[in-house]
Amino acid sequence: MYNQSELKKIVDKAIINLSYNTEAEKLIDPVRYILSMGGKRLRPVISLMSLNLYCDIIDGGIMPATGLEVFHNFTLVHDDIMDQAPVRRNFPTVHTRWGINQAVLSGDVMAFIANECFLQSPSGCLAKVFSVFNKAAIEVCVGQQLDIDYEKQAVITLDEYLRMIELKTAVLIAASAKIGSIIGGADIKDSDLIYEFGRNLGLAFQIQDDLLDIYGDARVFGKVQGGDIIANKKTFLLVKAFEIASAEQEKKLHELFTAGSTDPESKVKGVLDIYDQLNIRNLTENLANEHINIAFSQLEKVSVSRERKEEIMQITLSLIGRDK
Amino acid sequence: MYNQSELKKIVDKAIINLSYNTEAEKLIDPVRYILSMGGKRLRPVISLMSLNLYCDIIDGGIMPATGLEVFHNFTLVHDDIMDQAPVRRNFPTVHTRWGINQAVLSGDVMAFIANECFLQSPSGCLAKVFSVFNKAAIEVCVGQQLDIDYEKQAVITLDEYLRMIELKTAVLIAASAKIGSIIGGADIKDSDLIYEFGRNLGLAFQIQDDLLDIYGDARVFGKVQGGDIIANKKTFLLVKAFEIASAEQEKKLHELFTAGSTDPESKVKGVLDIYDQLNIRNLTENLANEHINIAFSQLEKVSVSRERKEEIMQITLSLIGRDK
Repeated sequence: MYNQSELKKIVDKAIINLSYNTEAEKLIDPVRYILSMGGKRLRPVISLMSLNLYCDIIDGGIMPATGLEVFHNFTLVHDDIMDQAPVRRNFPTVHTRWGINQAVLSGDVMAFIANECFLQSPSGCLAKVFSVFNKAAIEVCVGQQLDIDYEKQAVITLDEYLRMIELKTAVLIAASAKIGSIIGGADIKDSDLIYEFGRNLGLAFQIQDDLLDIYGDARVFGKVQGGDIIANKKTFLLVKAFEIASAEQEKKLHELFTAGSTDPESKVKGVLDIYDQLNIRNLTENLANEHINIAFSQLEKVSVSRERKEEIMQITLSLIGRDK
Repeated sequence: MYNQSELKKIVDKAIINLSYNTEAEKLIDPVRYILSMGGKRLRPVISLMSLNLYCDIIDGGIMPATGLEVFHNFTLVHDDIMDQAPVRRNFPTVHTRWGINQAVLSGDVMAFIANECFLQSPSGCLAKVFSVFNKAAIEVCVGQQLDIDYEKQAVITLDEYLRMIELKTAVLIAASAKIGSIIGGADIKDSDLIYEFGRNLGLAFQIQDDLLDIYGDARVFGKVQGGDIIANKKTFLLVKAFEIASAEQEKKLHELFTAGSTDPESKVKGVLDIYDQLNIRNLTENLANEHINIAFSQLEKVSVSRERKEEIMQITLSLIGRDK
């Protein structure tokens, strides 16, 4: 069985070895740039772990796994345009460095480089794998649309928020896991269970990510502390706070999120005070844990030995910091 | 055999019947908008004609043909952002109507809607069809990059120009024709000939398109007359003019293309004068005809009866106005 660090190395190598049409280097420079920024390679690693549940030889899954990472980075390039984000993982975003037009076009070509990776799936499961990926890709776009739409609304419901992160984040992790299992030879029942495992893992992961924006170490995380609050982003913490706030706390929250009413630092501090009063940190951790538990209950039903599930269970726990 | 108008109707119907994830209508509204603007549906029609060379029943080619049109329109949405084009086919462009962010995202989802169409290719040729499409898709992005790069250069060579339009326009028409032939059951030799047929047809088509910008009927064409000249776009006419201009004509051309030196109307008139002096219209028509002749010589070698080639020959001639 491969562990997380071995799989990450395999994925990193496959990304470095990607071959490009280099007739226009300006098109490809931003592609190499965003793909070399690193990160956990969560989606391809999960995909290969899922394959590895069934099969010791994982070669057939490496290119589709790489496609998942290329697609994910494509969404980052375009999302950063839409969010006007200046920095990602401590580096200037693609559009900041090369301009919006270049970010649109280099992003576009990444979508087709991802396709090229999926076309290298084992021929027997190409149609299945591609179809699982593409359904997720469309859903990710829908999720990004909801994210944009919700930014214009002062308040959204918890259900709206959870559906948005499901589409924007969880379905791609679910698809990654499912694709690995299909290539590994899982039957439909197993690959559906693994999809549900991945979906819940993805939800937990995003909820945890929301938490880290404000309670994480900004340097390690590569973002501004409380950046989501400053950018008026909907997070689980904020949506939950609005849901359970007293009339007075709600009024205060609305004030804090009214443009120009406070400087960023006081805004983050003001919101944090209300989070503390409402015990938001615990509530958030609880929900992330709940989804991890559901993920495990799905994984439990998967028809491979408990021993083979060790690595995927470990990465799952590490994602919400329960391995420390 | 189906004729152009019958095939266009079949494609229009398939486009209308496309099913979307409608959880976020704002995402899909621009997709419906651009796809309902009409146009000749050249790529899917060529693809189905190419299929029809081999096979009376064309059903298996309809969804991939639709994918070609969706992909083509995806490139229009994103190219219009990069070109800051306000109008297309007499309608406001997507980013003019909905803003750049929406145009990026709704464009993105079209790339995956196109994938969804290709995934409905007959299973026996899915991998082949998808791979021909995807190679072209990457090349189209490279072509757009060259287009952007060349806009910053005062002069480019004819070879550079021809390679740029080959990538940006011709390879997708070539791929469309090849995809149809593969689904129809053509052997490798035939499908390669048909690709070359399509590539030359595509080159002729783009050269003709350049010609129509200045010598076409602006109302019918849905663009501003001389719009390419006003926008400093590289066209065959301009590149050829620079190639054969006298020192004095070259100086005049440079003056005309120096920003702010003349009003748009005088600029178009000034350029047109030089085109007339250099006989550019004839030279352009000759090159378009040359590529049509090469296209026909490839088609000639395709191993189906001359009778079956009638429709595809007719549309080819009509594209450069030789059927009138």
